[in-house]
Amino acid sequence: MPLTPEQAAEIAEARTTPRPTLRATSPGMEAELYVAHEILDHGLLRVIDYMGDDAAICQAARVSYGRGTKAVTDDRGLIRYLMRHWHSTPFEMCEVKFHVKLPVFVARQWIRHRTANVNEYSARYSILDREFYIPAPENLAAQSVVNNQGRGELLEGDEAQRVLDLLRDDAMRSFDHYEGMLSQDGQKGLARELARMNLPMNTYTQWYWKTDLHNLFHFLRLRADTHAQYEIRVYAEKMCEITRAWVPLAYGAFEDYRLGGVNLSARAKEVLQRRLRGEVVTQEMSGMSKGEWREFQAEWG
Amino acid sequence: MPLTPEQAAEIAEARTTPRPTLRATSPGMEAELYVAHEILDHGLLRVIDYMGDDAAICQAARVSYGRGTKAVTDDRGLIRYLMRHWHSTPFEMCEVKFHVKLPVFVARQWIRHRTANVNEYSARYSILDREFYIPAPENLAAQSVVNNQGRGELLEGDEAQRVLDLLRDDAMRSFDHYEGMLSQDGQKGLARELARMNLPMNTYTQWYWKTDLHNLFHFLRLRADTHAQYEIRVYAEKMCEITRAWVPLAYGAFEDYRLGGVNLSARAKEVLQRRLRGEVVTQEMSGMSKGEWREFQAEWG
Amino acid sequence: MPLTPEQAAEIAEARTTPRPTLRATSPGMEAELYVAHEILDHGLLRVIDYMGDDAAICQAARVSYGRGTKAVTDDRGLIRYLMRHWHSTPFEMCEVKFHVKLPVFVARQWIRHRTANVNEYSARYSILDREFYIPAPENLAAQSVVNNQGRGELLEGDEAQRVLDLLRDDAMRSFDHYEGMLSQDGQKGLARELARMNLPMNTYTQWYWKTDLHNLFHFLRLRADTHAQYEIRVYAEKMCEITRAWVPLAYGAFEDYRLGGVNLSARAKEVLQRRLRGEVVTQEMSGMSKGEWREFQAEWG
Amino acid sequence: MPLTPEQAAEIAEARTTPRPTLRATSPGMEAELYVAHEILDHGLLRVIDYMGDDAAICQAARVSYGRGTKAVTDDRGLIRYLMRHWHSTPFEMCEVKFHVKLPVFVARQWIRHRTANVNEYSARYSILDREFYIPAPENLAAQSVVNNQGRGELLEGDEAQRVLDLLRDDAMRSFDHYEGMLSQDGQKGLARELARMNLPMNTYTQWYWKTDLHNLFHFLRLRADTHAQYEIRVYAEKMCEITRAWVPLAYGAFEDYRLGGVNLSARAKEVLQRRLRGEVVTQEMSGMSKGEWREFQAEWG
Repeated sequence: MPLTPEQAAEIAEARTTPRPTLRATSPGMEAELYVAHEILDHGLLRVIDYMGDDAAICQAARVSYGRGTKAVTDDRGLIRYLMRHWHSTPFEMCEVKFHVKLPVFVARQWIRHRTANVNEYSARYSILDREFYIPAPENLAAQSVVNNQGRGELLEGDEAQRVLDLLRDDAMRSFDHYEGMLSQDGQKGLARELARMNLPMNTYTQWYWKTDLHNLFHFLRLRADTHAQYEIRVYAEKMCEITRAWVPLAYGAFEDYRLGGVNLSARAKEVLQRRLRGEVVTQEMSGMSKGEWREFQAEWG
Repeated sequence: MPLTPEQAAEIAEARTTPRPTLRATSPGMEAELYVAHEILDHGLLRVIDYMGDDAAICQAARVSYGRGTKAVTDDRGLIRYLMRHWHSTPFEMCEVKFHVKLPVFVARQWIRHRTANVNEYSARYSILDREFYIPAPENLAAQSVVNNQGRGELLEGDEAQRVLDLLRDDAMRSFDHYEGMLSQDGQKGLARELARMNLPMNTYTQWYWKTDLHNLFHFLRLRADTHAQYEIRVYAEKMCEITRAWVPLAYGAFEDYRLGGVNLSARAKEVLQRRLRGEVVTQEMSGMSKGEWREFQAEWG
Repeated sequence: MPLTPEQAAEIAEARTTPRPTLRATSPGMEAELYVAHEILDHGLLRVIDYMGDDAAICQAARVSYGRGTKAVTDDRGLIRYLMRHWHSTPFEMCEVKFHVKLPVFVARQWIRHRTANVNEYSARYSILDREFYIPAPENLAAQSVVNNQGRGELLEGDEAQRVLDLLRDDAMRSFDHYEGMLSQDGQKGLARELARMNLPMNTYTQWYWKTDLHNLFHFLRLRADTHAQYEIRVYAEKMCEITRAWVPLAYGAFEDYRLGGVNLSARAKEVLQRRLRGEVVTQEMSGMSKGEWREFQAEWG
Repeated sequence: MPLTPEQAAEIAEARTTPRPTLRATSPGMEAELYVAHEILDHGLLRVIDYMGDDAAICQAARVSYGRGTKAVTDDRGLIRYLMRHWHSTPFEMCEVKFHVKLPVFVARQWIRHRTANVNEYSARYSILDREFYIPAPENLAAQSVVNNQGRGELLEGDEAQRVLDLLRDDAMRSFDHYEGMLSQDGQKGLARELARMNLPMNTYTQWYWKTDLHNLFHFLRLRADTHAQYEIRVYAEKMCEITRAWVPLAYGAFEDYRLGGVNLSARAKEVLQRRLRGEVVTQEMSGMSKGEWREFQAEWG
């Protein structure tokens, strides 16, 4: 359970009192506000605030004075046009702020996306909680033999158990020692900024993370992808659901053009054009390397 | 008048219908939403949307679960601490979106601030309006003789009148010709993306401009400064008022530490320390150049 | 001619004296350094400095200690892999700095690319030169009737001549008045920061512009595209040539995957898959709008 | 020792062969290129590449055609002027790329500076080395009792020994288990992207980090400061030395205005002005809080 009763109460409290606003509101996103989604074994994801909706994207693209009286079908067409032609600035006009609790090794992947604002819980000031990510058995996989960075077969039986035991025991012991080093029980107690270095990278941290919709889509395209590490993908997939509720038209365009879309190189395009004309094209004729041809065939047969 | 009756009606309409939201709201900012402030002769500035308030800054700094029950004095102290120690990320958690109508030469200064999102009215798609900035007589100044980039004495009498006539006539004639080149009255009509090049840089353009509070403060420190060009400063000063209404605690800290604060070099600090000990320090002893000493004396006597 | 004899001499001088360096060098780029390429009627583009080469991209991707002994074919394969899978950070490890002289309306499009460093000639401090962009007759086109923002048929005969005369006369007159307003011949002379507003947007400005290779590729993909306005495209096309000379492997990958590549939406991909199976797919069956189908057919027949 | 003999040989090799270039070179920086500075117990810092020198800053500020014939005293004055008046863009025209080996908990502080380019060694692809940061006894400090995030008294005797033993033993054991989980000795072997989570945050990682001079100065002002954590400060201090060798004029200005300079709030400025007039000002009269007054007195007595 990622929340204490006090935290759950604070969240419930925050959802009780609507206030009037003149701003654009998204009904789908209002339903999401503050709600804690549990991710992994102790993680969470929740929306803290948002700015804008589908109409705000169109309004900015048109630099208009009002919200306009355009039909939803006009807005859908405009949004699809903007997405198709990489007109990214109107999507930057929406903003979202998340509260995320996540393992440190996931946080280190996440932070590579630099066009975002971040406030992380400080282990220089504060003492971390005794919470670690331990994979569920169905996520305990071997190194892939075909992909240098991915996962392959599941670990099973004794090997799986041994791994889980090691992860759990090492985390517990490291945390015991972290607490022991901090302890002032008859001692000076090691500075927090030093003691934290003993903790493993599956320790949970948390942060506020804020970004605009264009950069969120970029994050989701890379992190909700099947090649992303499972432990970050589960956050991205939940964010996809939330984004769909927030800006359904923009999310629909994103899904069609980015998530479900593909990029063809000039060479790949030519192969398809020749196939459409009825020719048989081999790897040798394609100009692609073996690895690239394998990727191409996985997509196109 | 920067607004047509239709635009004024759209704005009035947008202010009639509050909707309930669970987000943080700022009463001062709700009063500002959509309202068009007239700037210069045809410009305007208005808030289109905002995210966050003073409490949101503290909440992010604490990475907390709820809005907390902290007293306002605690929040004020925390915000002043964050500002004093250049902890900028909590201020990035607030966001604001403006609609601005401004002369092109002002837009060119403004856009140098890159950490913002912008959608500008497109003169490739659309035809610009016949609106130019003509300075009021009290802003018609000569080149400064002490400052390479500033203004000096006012122009007066015939010289002032001649300048105003030239600006007005050239703008009008350029716009007549812009319209003439676009005209399809028996002609093909020049492409908009080409015809626009005939317009002068005091032509008004407009954009949606969105930024976070930290970067807004950076913009305001440079552009609400007395060294900023008058025509951008009037926008910045109105934004200062709006920001004060939005996040009064953060604005108060900004005013004390940035707008009203000064930076002392190591050399300047040493001069002050020696003066406080009763010594008389001359420019030669200070290590400062003459220009720098002049700036120092203007501040400290 | 974009250069005065003094400027040409300064450039020639800069190319006479090689100095030894231990840094990575690119022979193709050394040949480009400082050389002024003439663009449009008075514009120019030249490389002022650069950092890195193809090997530097691989070295960063491998976080290696030395330049390595990898074969060029290994580097080509790695670079193509990185480009194909959107691993953009290794490309960010190369940097380039240009000196550009360009019309103001082009500068305003260019500056929308925010991830770059810019120093522009200041018309607050300095007086601008009497130089304007006047299109060559073969670039004087009418508004497109099929594309809201593009160009259509060429203007011809009297209409073309009338447009060229208007552009030239208005620019000349505006510049005469600019000079006249600045003049201190028995007058105070209007401040430069004000007088500049009388100049048209085809006035030439200049700047130093620095960016990394990843962001340069992004710029080139949008601005060397056939949909980009001609007056910015000619700069982008010259930058493509320069980039090919600088980092031939990276440019080759960019050309295959980005410049010559296409993005397929999920819907478009499905249409192609069905066609490859021998089905006939109509717009109605495709899920695409008419406009989108037209774009799809232009690409795929 | 942070380098293997092979790595040391690669670095020595890279320093043997100067190549001619027409670019600006910095003799101080050429002497630094590739040289590995040892930091902490297993860390390192070295310059991989650089772009620009002091003259390049001035050249960009002047948007000039050549390197100019300006005297060094002119350049010094211009650079000091730019720094004093926060004209940051000319400093952005210089760029530097470092190779850094550093503990993960330091990397996590470092990466908060977002305006930089980073390529980190991937623990999804590769296996990490058995190297951890263990503080030297003289850096083993207790939590500060006056500063919520700093260090206080040194730990001594048994307490110090106990901490060192825990850090070393836990790191060793975690690494043994990391290797054990990866092992395919009769097993499938856990995926690298999972096994890494068992490692503590004092594990060393490494990256290529590239930034411009303006953002480097910003980093150094915060991280070479006495309030920065010791383990990142030692990197920043070495970078200060390197930067002084690279751009001595710019570094001199940075040292005077930023590193050695102070920011005075409007309130603090007023207190100093009153003191200079001979008045005695107390905390109550100053408008400052107790904490702020304490900081003020530490600086000004």
